[in-house]
Amino acid sequence: MSEKRDPAATGETVDSSAGLLGLERVSAFSDGVFAIAITLLVIEIKVPAVEHDLAQALLAKWPSYLGYLVSFIIIGIWWVNHHRLFDGFVRADHLLLLLNLFHLMCIAFIPFTTALLAEYFWHGGADERTAAAIYSGTLLLAALFDNAMWLRGVQAGLLSPEMPASMIPAINRLFALTLLVYAIAVGLAFVLPVISIAICLAIAIYYALPGQRVPVL
Amino acid sequence: MSEKRDPAATGETVDSSAGLLGLERVSAFSDGVFAIAITLLVIEIKVPAVEHDLAQALLAKWPSYLGYLVSFIIIGIWWVNHHRLFDGFVRADHLLLLLNLFHLMCIAFIPFTTALLAEYFWHGGADERTAAAIYSGTLLLAALFDNAMWLRGVQAGLLSPEMPASMIPAINRLFALTLLVYAIAVGLAFVLPVISIAICLAIAIYYALPGQRVPVL
Amino acid sequence: MSEKRDPAATGETVDSSAGLLGLERVSAFSDGVFAIAITLLVIEIKVPAVEHDLAQALLAKWPSYLGYLVSFIIIGIWWVNHHRLFDGFVRADHLLLLLNLFHLMCIAFIPFTTALLAEYFWHGGADERTAAAIYSGTLLLAALFDNAMWLRGVQAGLLSPEMPASMIPAINRLFALTLLVYAIAVGLAFVLPVISIAICLAIAIYYALPGQRVPVL
Amino acid sequence: MSEKRDPAATGETVDSSAGLLGLERVSAFSDGVFAIAITLLVIEIKVPAVEHDLAQALLAKWPSYLGYLVSFIIIGIWWVNHHRLFDGFVRADHLLLLLNLFHLMCIAFIPFTTALLAEYFWHGGADERTAAAIYSGTLLLAALFDNAMWLRGVQAGLLSPEMPASMIPAINRLFALTLLVYAIAVGLAFVLPVISIAICLAIAIYYALPGQRVPVL
Repeated sequence: MSEKRDPAATGETVDSSAGLLGLERVSAFSDGVFAIAITLLVIEIKVPAVEHDLAQALLAKWPSYLGYLVSFIIIGIWWVNHHRLFDGFVRADHLLLLLNLFHLMCIAFIPFTTALLAEYFWHGGADERTAAAIYSGTLLLAALFDNAMWLRGVQAGLLSPEMPASMIPAINRLFALTLLVYAIAVGLAFVLPVISIAICLAIAIYYALPGQRVPVL
Repeated sequence: MSEKRDPAATGETVDSSAGLLGLERVSAFSDGVFAIAITLLVIEIKVPAVEHDLAQALLAKWPSYLGYLVSFIIIGIWWVNHHRLFDGFVRADHLLLLLNLFHLMCIAFIPFTTALLAEYFWHGGADERTAAAIYSGTLLLAALFDNAMWLRGVQAGLLSPEMPASMIPAINRLFALTLLVYAIAVGLAFVLPVISIAICLAIAIYYALPGQRVPVL
Repeated sequence: MSEKRDPAATGETVDSSAGLLGLERVSAFSDGVFAIAITLLVIEIKVPAVEHDLAQALLAKWPSYLGYLVSFIIIGIWWVNHHRLFDGFVRADHLLLLLNLFHLMCIAFIPFTTALLAEYFWHGGADERTAAAIYSGTLLLAALFDNAMWLRGVQAGLLSPEMPASMIPAINRLFALTLLVYAIAVGLAFVLPVISIAICLAIAIYYALPGQRVPVL
Repeated sequence: MSEKRDPAATGETVDSSAGLLGLERVSAFSDGVFAIAITLLVIEIKVPAVEHDLAQALLAKWPSYLGYLVSFIIIGIWWVNHHRLFDGFVRADHLLLLLNLFHLMCIAFIPFTTALLAEYFWHGGADERTAAAIYSGTLLLAALFDNAMWLRGVQAGLLSPEMPASMIPAINRLFALTLLVYAIAVGLAFVLPVISIAICLAIAIYYALPGQRVPVL
């Protein structure tokens, strides 16, 4: 929305540009990283080299397709959430930019964790649990930086004046709950890796459901 | 067109921003995925390692260049169609965003299906048919999500008021026809894989012809 | 420049949006392809796997770095030219979009031709000549589609009314000369491959020089 | 900020568009290259192929993760600096565009130098020193082109009239100091490669600190 609003009408010009860098540029750069990370997922899926029975060889790689599906959904929904978070800000400061950079670092790492998961998923044993822990752990880390951005926004007065103060505790609770569920997913990775990944997907889908979330976030 | 129109003049500001996320951001993100997917096609073409007669080795890889050509045209034209579809909307809702994400997931998968096709094309036998079926099947799936976006737009009242209601049945018919032809292409992949791919290319080219299509779509 | 100009003031709104797709979107999509292609050049440079004497192994790969340098300059300058060409248009039609797609197809192919050149350059013999011919031939093809876009713009009345008609013959001559020099480079690839590549680089640098070119192009 | 400002109000339209290409386009293209380069860092991290003990194999690859972390931070902060530099300009000329292209060439090269560093870091010996020298040397080169852009801006009158002339010597000193420290890092690479990389990271972090820098740069 901020791309469209008339600065002259809202009187936010000064705030928007007072930070280190305009929010829209950071937002556009972040969009680029999300779009590239989501599209790079495919290059981790390799064409099998077989003499015959390609269909069989492709079917055996089902964890790769499942990983592509799950990570595409997760990155796509996180991208929407990232935009909604930034829509709640009127400006950025140095710390917010750094936290955003660390958040993007986690997002851009997902093609690797997805390839790792696809390679070792359904193997059973410690290697599958390791891959699931790294996959869910990267998302937990991304969520931590997301939450840190929000907290920094609240603390440093970067929030839009349009956001009612009464909404802040509700968003805080949602973030705390999200982090708790991600932490459970990481813990479960060492016991039930399939359930761990299912929880990661479920959190993303929950955020994509209409009407179940705090409006602004 | 929506990037250029003056919100104040058309009175659409409220509608445009009332959804989960502004249409332009979704559109820009989708543009990014299309642009990255189309450019990633090249990294599936490997430089042959030969001691001598590079020309011969390169000529032997003609299915790779043909696949690059066909997929570049298909992704490029689908990109135009995606924009025209979104130009018909004034806002997006949660379901539309999810359907768009699944559509992009199919588009971003094309570098893989192209590499698969290039590797197994002209081999004859079951493997070539498998590769052709996956290639055309991914496009059928992309077209299904495209059609679902359109139907959701009609059903949930997301269409631009500028679009005459009389145009809707014509667009519905065009979508149904497109899906039918893609389904035929998938079916033919198991019998005449070359024809299957030719049909996929022909559909894209048909959409690129002037004056043969429903104006808005 | 078209991004900044006020449509209401110039009265070009109708023209700009009357085509298949707004020029700015096509321009932004093309920008994306140029930016991705130029950045993908690096992934063709592989880290050598050596037990000792990395410096020696890296020095032996000098054609890779030279190829990176040359192709980066060429794609970068072509990107500027692409924008200047599009700044001369007020709208696009179907054929222009298709020609642009084929132009981008050549640009996005450059990471492959660069890798090919780096692998077989300085080998001498037929393989080096093959690689040089494919490298310069791709640029010739890109220039042909560039010229076709310009000719289509002139013929179909897509040019900006701000462009003086007297400038058109001069631009035609520049395009003809460019094509001639690229054709000479392709021909020389079969005799003096190093000179062929040097000419490709020289054409790009010539276009980057100030004051030597037709103003609008 | 320049994206939002009203050209009619500031009277900068003529200056902004008088150069070879609008500053915003160059800025957007540069953003794309930065975003792609930062996201491509991940594809240099390969999934290990092990029969058992994945955790051990992953831990052994710690230089890859460290390299990812360091280069992500460096590219991210350089991106912010690039924007701040461009915010100080009101137009670009041919030479500035060329210098920017060479700057981007260094940035886009970082995924390679990072992979090189990750492969040979902690090996000890000449190969580690070679990798560290190439890593820090690429950053020194990038900084040289950055400084050259600034000097060209000052010399050719491309600076924004909003920038007080008194600030120019301070920025010159900051650039000189930065170049000196990068040169020390390159020199140290041949003696203490770990310290050399630490200095490269420290320079980036210094630039990210609030209130320690010349305001406009």
